Amino acid sequence: MTVSLLVVGSIALDSVQTPFGSTADALGGSAVFFSYAGCLLHPVQIVGVVGNDYPFDRLERLAERDVDLTGVTKVDGESFRWKGKYSYDLQNRETLETRLGVFADFQPRIPESFRDAEYVFLGNIDPELQLGVLDQIHTPKLVACDTMNYWIQGKRDVLLELLRHVDVLLVNDSEARELSGDWNVYRAARWILEQGPRQVVVKQGEYGAVLMGTEGTFYVPGYPLEDVFDPTGAGDAFAGGFMAHLARSGDLSHENFRRAMVYGSAMGSFAVERFSVDRFDEIGHAEITKRVRQFSDLVRFEIVPEQERVGG
Amino acid sequence: MTVSLLVVGSIALDSVQTPFGSTADALGGSAVFFSYAGCLLHPVQIVGVVGNDYPFDRLERLAERDVDLTGVTKVDGESFRWKGKYSYDLQNRETLETRLGVFADFQPRIPESFRDAEYVFLGNIDPELQLGVLDQIHTPKLVACDTMNYWIQGKRDVLLELLRHVDVLLVNDSEARELSGDWNVYRAARWILEQGPRQVVVKQGEYGAVLMGTEGTFYVPGYPLEDVFDPTGAGDAFAGGFMAHLARSGDLSHENFRRAMVYGSAMGSFAVERFSVDRFDEIGHAEITKRVRQFSDLVRFEIVPEQERVGG
Repeated sequence: MTVSLLVVGSIALDSVQTPFGSTADALGGSAVFFSYAGCLLHPVQIVGVVGNDYPFDRLERLAERDVDLTGVTKVDGESFRWKGKYSYDLQNRETLETRLGVFADFQPRIPESFRDAEYVFLGNIDPELQLGVLDQIHTPKLVACDTMNYWIQGKRDVLLELLRHVDVLLVNDSEARELSGDWNVYRAARWILEQGPRQVVVKQGEYGAVLMGTEGTFYVPGYPLEDVFDPTGAGDAFAGGFMAHLARSGDLSHENFRRAMVYGSAMGSFAVERFSVDRFDEIGHAEITKRVRQFSDLVRFEIVPEQERVGG
Repeated sequence: MTVSLLVVGSIALDSVQTPFGSTADALGGSAVFFSYAGCLLHPVQIVGVVGNDYPFDRLERLAERDVDLTGVTKVDGESFRWKGKYSYDLQNRETLETRLGVFADFQPRIPESFRDAEYVFLGNIDPELQLGVLDQIHTPKLVACDTMNYWIQGKRDVLLELLRHVDVLLVNDSEARELSGDWNVYRAARWILEQGPRQVVVKQGEYGAVLMGTEGTFYVPGYPLEDVFDPTGAGDAFAGGFMAHLARSGDLSHENFRRAMVYGSAMGSFAVERFSVDRFDEIGHAEITKRVRQFSDLVRFEIVPEQERVGG
């Protein structure tokens, strides 16, 4: 039987301006990016909320790809909309508008058929809601979560309580720094590991991501992209590739977490090559396999013991 | 016969303030960091200038380690002094004072015994002087150089002329961006390759460094240091490890350039663990070998083909 993989998070409509163009009301949100990336590797169960203005038909493509939309609730009101603008070098972004709409009152209710989920990803929502999701899952094998500075500042105690119940925290470097109060990302990661998670993934944007845990430290560089189009959703696509690889293999060994990091990084690199989730409409098994092999080539080197002497 | 490795660059006295302490008139300069790191792998010939106030006896440690100081000229006047202060997170530094002293009139004269040098590193000095050095070398096998924003802005044409005569350019990411006028480091690197060098190394500080050339792209992450003490000299120590590994092996294959990147990154990581060149007084073959193996472990992963199917 297939291992079940559940994601709970936002389902949004993004309007993004980059130096290369703009989109209006494009598919976005953590659960959407996660699902688009993850479903290329493994079936996904998605839980989220949309307003009755949501172009639901555009989520149907996910249903065609083994994403179970049973947990997507349609509620009277406006869908969550985010509008943002990136700087010329894509290094900074400014939020122009956030309209939470029906997402403001999101109370994730996990459908009965999803409560046996074995692999669970808690997208970036209020940590109280993330804890509430865990209460509804019977016996998860692996729980991973994301968060953001807003919750680190505003709901620190609840977030720390949540960390005692998750196996993997995925954050970016500024979040790791803010959460731990330590500017060194490796010390920050060690601090996070003391709060509960057995593993922590610190994402460093274009530079790559590091996995730290008791069994070792692993670094995957960012894929060397000459054309980055829209960085939105890269972190959630990373999480989708990461979790979906773990779920499809059902293997929680350290060696397999390393591979999951590479699949995550591959999915993150695809996400930024087009607006919204558009790139995931273009790729399949062949492109993913190729990119993972390119990661392997990117970092490979062999030590030649006879060269290791002083003085040539 | 041993392959000869020559470095031309600054020999300075650095006064550095970090959150962890400060030094006054400590050994510094590109040629000094290069030599301290490089000589742990291979003999080095150094060309530079010092004032008659320089604590020359402190360079004698280099002589004990197969660094040929024949090319260090002592001139009446003050030695080159740099004073700088790092921010609390070591991410930014402010130059408090630069006194060029005798370095202002530095005209590198390569001793007769160094003119057969096969591997040459041109540290960050005026590109006219870098070209002048090359005129004095008979038939180098590999020429690498560094530069900085000051020369990119002030002597762009001479720098571009220099690039037509070097095999490898080592720069940091901001320099690559400024030189090429492109904020994407991979496009910037490709632009640089079109100017002459067969390979370009873009250093990205704590994140690592990328090698780009016609035979492939290689990424080495930064070593995960929990305690960074003083970033000064990391780039020159990188260059020392990189060039010294190439020289000791006499191997200019792409595979060996990958290894050189790792030895460079290892030396850069040692440099920042103490003030000045102090860390290089503590390490030898065992520590270097260990760190290079840690780099290998940091990035290793194996693809399992039977996992590469969709839908677990």
